[in-house]
Amino acid sequence: MAHSLKIFCCFFFFFLFSTLSIIPLSHQLEQHPLDSLTPNEFIRVQAIVNQSHPSTINDITFQYIGLNEPDKQALISWLQNHRPTPITAPPPRQAFVIARINHQTHELVVDLSYDNIVSDHIHHGFGYPLFTFQEQNRASQLVFNHAPFLAALNKRGLKVEEVICETFALGWFGETKQNGRVVKVMCYYLDGTVNLYMRPIEAITVTVDLEAMKITHFRDRLVVPVPKAAGTDYIESEQKAPFGPELKGITVVQPDGPSFIIDGSRVRWANWDFHLTLDARVGPIVSLASIYDTEKQEFRRVMYRGFVSELFVPYMDLTEEWYYRTFFDAGEYGYGLCAVPLEPLRDCPANAVYMGAFVAAQNGMPIEMPNVFCIFERNAGDVMWRHTETMIPPDLITEVRPDMSLVVRMVSTVGNYDYINDWEFKQIGSIKVTVGLTGLLEVRGSKYTHKDQIDEEVYGTLLAENTLGAYHDHFISYHLDLDVDGESNSFVKSKLETVKVTDQTSPRKSYWKVVSETAKTESDAKIKLGPDSA
Amino acid sequence: MAHSLKIFCCFFFFFLFSTLSIIPLSHQLEQHPLDSLTPNEFIRVQAIVNQSHPSTINDITFQYIGLNEPDKQALISWLQNHRPTPITAPPPRQAFVIARINHQTHELVVDLSYDNIVSDHIHHGFGYPLFTFQEQNRASQLVFNHAPFLAALNKRGLKVEEVICETFALGWFGETKQNGRVVKVMCYYLDGTVNLYMRPIEAITVTVDLEAMKITHFRDRLVVPVPKAAGTDYIESEQKAPFGPELKGITVVQPDGPSFIIDGSRVRWANWDFHLTLDARVGPIVSLASIYDTEKQEFRRVMYRGFVSELFVPYMDLTEEWYYRTFFDAGEYGYGLCAVPLEPLRDCPANAVYMGAFVAAQNGMPIEMPNVFCIFERNAGDVMWRHTETMIPPDLITEVRPDMSLVVRMVSTVGNYDYINDWEFKQIGSIKVTVGLTGLLEVRGSKYTHKDQIDEEVYGTLLAENTLGAYHDHFISYHLDLDVDGESNSFVKSKLETVKVTDQTSPRKSYWKVVSETAKTESDAKIKLGPDSA
Repeated sequence: MAHSLKIFCCFFFFFLFSTLSIIPLSHQLEQHPLDSLTPNEFIRVQAIVNQSHPSTINDITFQYIGLNEPDKQALISWLQNHRPTPITAPPPRQAFVIARINHQTHELVVDLSYDNIVSDHIHHGFGYPLFTFQEQNRASQLVFNHAPFLAALNKRGLKVEEVICETFALGWFGETKQNGRVVKVMCYYLDGTVNLYMRPIEAITVTVDLEAMKITHFRDRLVVPVPKAAGTDYIESEQKAPFGPELKGITVVQPDGPSFIIDGSRVRWANWDFHLTLDARVGPIVSLASIYDTEKQEFRRVMYRGFVSELFVPYMDLTEEWYYRTFFDAGEYGYGLCAVPLEPLRDCPANAVYMGAFVAAQNGMPIEMPNVFCIFERNAGDVMWRHTETMIPPDLITEVRPDMSLVVRMVSTVGNYDYINDWEFKQIGSIKVTVGLTGLLEVRGSKYTHKDQIDEEVYGTLLAENTLGAYHDHFISYHLDLDVDGESNSFVKSKLETVKVTDQTSPRKSYWKVVSETAKTESDAKIKLGPDSA
Repeated sequence: MAHSLKIFCCFFFFFLFSTLSIIPLSHQLEQHPLDSLTPNEFIRVQAIVNQSHPSTINDITFQYIGLNEPDKQALISWLQNHRPTPITAPPPRQAFVIARINHQTHELVVDLSYDNIVSDHIHHGFGYPLFTFQEQNRASQLVFNHAPFLAALNKRGLKVEEVICETFALGWFGETKQNGRVVKVMCYYLDGTVNLYMRPIEAITVTVDLEAMKITHFRDRLVVPVPKAAGTDYIESEQKAPFGPELKGITVVQPDGPSFIIDGSRVRWANWDFHLTLDARVGPIVSLASIYDTEKQEFRRVMYRGFVSELFVPYMDLTEEWYYRTFFDAGEYGYGLCAVPLEPLRDCPANAVYMGAFVAAQNGMPIEMPNVFCIFERNAGDVMWRHTETMIPPDLITEVRPDMSLVVRMVSTVGNYDYINDWEFKQIGSIKVTVGLTGLLEVRGSKYTHKDQIDEEVYGTLLAENTLGAYHDHFISYHLDLDVDGESNSFVKSKLETVKVTDQTSPRKSYWKVVSETAKTESDAKIKLGPDSA
């Protein structure tokens, strides 16, 4: 699918982790103002909100609970006065809550020092809170009690027990009237494979009102063949010979243990010091990343706060069951909520250390996310800097500094698609952010079995019989609040500009020079990737 | 130096490796037609050429000796008939020689089966053969017996024993008359550092005619301060505290040994099979890269031959001593000739295996290049493919395939600049080519000590007192003769084209579609990196 690359993605969910009731406050003696809410804090937040809006007389669901980020200036001032002994109080510890209460979206700030609600605002504008796993799960099960859907399966000769359904956000196409919290439900077929995404049941539209938790619209447009199961299973143990040569074992060994220290949410490695937490919506948040200056003998801040702010995945397909697919994988599904437990030795190497985190369930109670982060030192066999000097007799000087880095990884599986989210800290002082895209391709079922049959726009590439790889993009945006040596940072754009040499003073006809400009607004700082060097 | 990046490079040389006289034909029982010349073959080539042009009556130097690549069709036909038993003879084994004989450039083909010269052509057009280390070394020593140069050092208060000189190719600026084989010599100052490149002795032009081995022009234009030595040394053991935190040991372990097999010049790993040799001009040549198809149970060719064909490094500086710097690091200095011995555990990880090679000295005799390649399996902690499936109760399916690859590395140090040349073979079937640029920045001496003093074009960025980082580019071009499943390959360019939706049939206003075109000529296949997705 070389040319439709921008692969594909999709969404959907399930109840990933088991709920916990009460977890004691952990090993961390002193709480940092940027630490995520503890399990006890989640429980207290839930109790405070429930007290003011009792669930006995209110219909209440928690769509999001997270730390209400303290004011930056207050935090910085506290930090500056904090060591060796705190002389000012930390900024107020607060939670930010988005709850649906009696079918309205409330944005609440809960103070955890005074155990009270600081503000309770009803949101009337555009936009909806994160979906919860529970409501998605309930919505996708509705079809199994919907006679027209069961008839549609019957018409296609499909067994209901092999059908798996998912919920899909609706997008926004300029409507001025809000339609309420509505999703579409689309289904897949197993029957001989675990790779449900390769077996879409096409041309059926099911619309569900999440508030009423009812199917409000159903249409079975036409029958499209379900692609066959053969050759789609990916479970390693199910694969049949012939296999290629097996590779011998290879592992990373650190006889003296790792060189990093994890102290609560704080991570220290080489010259780096940073704070790492998980948020249900945006996933990993790296804060207060600083680097130790060996000459000044002090830490110098590089980044105040960085995270993936959104993953926008629009599909390029106008058909009735596909046109609306323009997903916000963070804002609608939760990049952190969809994080999966990392598989030791496979998702991360042998020298990795794992960290867990907590998010809130729909009832506000904490859910444990075990192994949600791994942290490891990478020695990929690369060279950070080297030089061989042959010019100074009698010796050959060979100086080589191998490249070492620290990787913080989270994997978020949003439906068929797995995002591998890395923050890599390098000894040269740079931070490298990467999102790897893997998982299973989003495909659309089709009547076509050979590309020569296609004489219409099909919005994809025929990959196999009845299987179109769907054209789409993944746009990943980052929130990066860089504070290189403090807050007064500028963004300087430097362009290479060709200068023609018109006089006869040089045999050269041209050269380039560097033209720099300092961005005054965020919009000034836009760089269009282009043929110009910048 | 964020905006002058395209770092810099420079050139020069020395007699890197010790000469050997006779090396027995090695362990390899059967020679492959693409194998580099053996030491014995170099000796035979030298003897054959010397016999026809006796050095007693001719002035003869060998600028290049390498394998005369066999005809592709002949080789492929031999390969197809080769296994299990050869039924056709291999293509003729020949050497290609560029020699200066009585100040003329001869291009000779020497047949090693019949021990004769097949062709001997005198080149009259533009272009010169590779420089040899010996002639560069001799040219750069001439200044030390040149009174005006010694006077120039004296005027600057510099000690002659701390001066190191290098030779620089002249470039071509549209002259219709050839100037013969001429170089410029530029010098640097040690005196308290090994980092000579940070201490250029500016504004002196020395021109040397390589044929006469004489200085033909000298000019001392003005005195520019030599940047100071303090803080420039890079030898690790010379550095003084404070140092940052020391990292604990980390190493790669393969208890059962590597998974690759090296058989002469042939390397096999995972599904890959390829042939690896060193050429004095272009460095590593990867040939006949094939991948084993486990279903068809046969090797399928991916690439017939690939190598770095040139590294073009033009500087953007019009000053008299700099304007001509437009180097061909392969064609003028020899990307393979400048390869350096790799440092175990630093240039390559603990699990690396090293290979040596041979090139010809100026007298035609073989020079051993020990540890010129390293080959290692990379396990960088990355994921090749993964998926977590939460939709199929009761189990969570987690399938993860860690990423493993095979890296073939060479480092070529052309003066101040170290190129790290990797060919990486991936299990997914792709070959990744990388050239890392490291070493020491090319700087120009300057009177300026602070950027606020600069009110003229200085062609660089002031990095330290009296030190300008010189603006330049590194353009690296590859020769890639891809034969994916045979020779009839096409290059298909696919662009994403926005389609506006004008009718009212869809709520969407636009989408993109894929428009593909097959390149008919090499020029058609050009892709301008731009804002368009392709």
